[in-house]
Amino acid sequence: MPRRFQDILDQNRAQKRFLCVGLDSDVSKLPKGQTQLSFNQAIVEATQDLVAAFKPNSAFYESQGAQGFETLKKTIAFIHAQAPHALVILDAKRADIGNTNKGYAQSAFEDLKADAITLNPYLGGEALQPFLDYKDKGSFILCRTSNEGAKEFQDLRVDSEPLYLKVAKQVSQRWNKNKNCGLVVGATGPEEIKKVRQAAPDIPFLVPGIGAQDGDIKDVFVNAGSNCLINISRSVIFSSNGPDFAQAARKEIEKLNEKLKQLF
Amino acid sequence: MPRRFQDILDQNRAQKRFLCVGLDSDVSKLPKGQTQLSFNQAIVEATQDLVAAFKPNSAFYESQGAQGFETLKKTIAFIHAQAPHALVILDAKRADIGNTNKGYAQSAFEDLKADAITLNPYLGGEALQPFLDYKDKGSFILCRTSNEGAKEFQDLRVDSEPLYLKVAKQVSQRWNKNKNCGLVVGATGPEEIKKVRQAAPDIPFLVPGIGAQDGDIKDVFVNAGSNCLINISRSVIFSSNGPDFAQAARKEIEKLNEKLKQLF
Repeated sequence: MPRRFQDILDQNRAQKRFLCVGLDSDVSKLPKGQTQLSFNQAIVEATQDLVAAFKPNSAFYESQGAQGFETLKKTIAFIHAQAPHALVILDAKRADIGNTNKGYAQSAFEDLKADAITLNPYLGGEALQPFLDYKDKGSFILCRTSNEGAKEFQDLRVDSEPLYLKVAKQVSQRWNKNKNCGLVVGATGPEEIKKVRQAAPDIPFLVPGIGAQDGDIKDVFVNAGSNCLINISRSVIFSSNGPDFAQAARKEIEKLNEKLKQLF
Repeated sequence: MPRRFQDILDQNRAQKRFLCVGLDSDVSKLPKGQTQLSFNQAIVEATQDLVAAFKPNSAFYESQGAQGFETLKKTIAFIHAQAPHALVILDAKRADIGNTNKGYAQSAFEDLKADAITLNPYLGGEALQPFLDYKDKGSFILCRTSNEGAKEFQDLRVDSEPLYLKVAKQVSQRWNKNKNCGLVVGATGPEEIKKVRQAAPDIPFLVPGIGAQDGDIKDVFVNAGSNCLINISRSVIFSSNGPDFAQAARKEIEKLNEKLKQLF
């Protein structure tokens, strides 16, 4: 049976696994003696039983040229082999016109074999259709991002509501015909999360901004409900720079899971 | 002296070279016996004296994995060697949060050595700062795209004007401190081009949508003025599928340049 994004997401939710480890494996921050691939493999091995997903961010691999691209592919293959229960979300924030998105979708889903991808909504749903057409693959659309400057356009008011809520409604009501859409909503704005959940009651959220960006994990669940994946990246994968880095990452994740247990 | 995006753009404009060849080198459309690299090299050699820029679209190379990444890098190196007067614009439509954009900017400008890149505005100018900080490199921000579904968000009215005009004004008035910003405005909407030019009088436009997407080259110049690059892709590079493909591309470009001459 083929892997289905929706099934894997549901299974993790049933097991109360909500954490997603962002493999933002910046080469300038790797512990001594590690390559991107060995680092990723160690993090995956040490943490996989505790988490629902891994999310390599494409930028950190592209910056290493063709070799980085190979590392990304091998990292994803390693996750599928070692942790078949875990989703692999390619954090690529892609968007182009329809014709061209076929190339990106093919790269993400067929060559790299990710289970899901992050996408940018600015070009509209018609443009993103080549991604959405992969019924068994997930597409997480940027809705309200966690960066300081997100408000410049995302908070502009359209018909008396912010643009990001328009995005949430379009994705939830129109783009989600294959039940494979999700939304990216930053943990740095609990009020925003609440509004997005009202606008899109039934679709999964991918929530970055916990940890290094200071969002609170309790706030996320209170406002988003349990249909979400909480992403943690730098604060976990780089919590130690020594040879114990993978075990240190595991400890950080255990702490977060303890917090989560108190919420359910 | 280092290559400066602004200088190369000005020099081409002075020489009345306005065309940009989109290297959307879809492997499924290549003439018999050609690889992406040999195809690109032949197109560049046959057309470079007639054009201002080449614009490889990242998706068509990423879809080929690590090898595609190498092809992209070699294509750009070939253009710099054979046609130093031509800008290389990496059509990647990237955008992430600031920290991560450093990786993309490094990839585009330092590893691949593009002169300019296309970017998506949804995350705001603060997020894109790592690109804008490269003073000698150009950043073309998506403003009004040429696809059918562009209107879904880009035309939404904010303070009684469409969102794309907000983007044009922010880029022109706030993001352009290093005089290295441009806007992507699709040729499929002459009315939109006119409004964007009013909102952003002084910055270069990159205009896709001529040819395969049916925009008219005269409409573009009437509305945008001469501070623009007209992109042509599929209608030119795939105008013949035989061994004469490069010369056929040259002929298409000559026809377009004839049209342009009548306008100046």
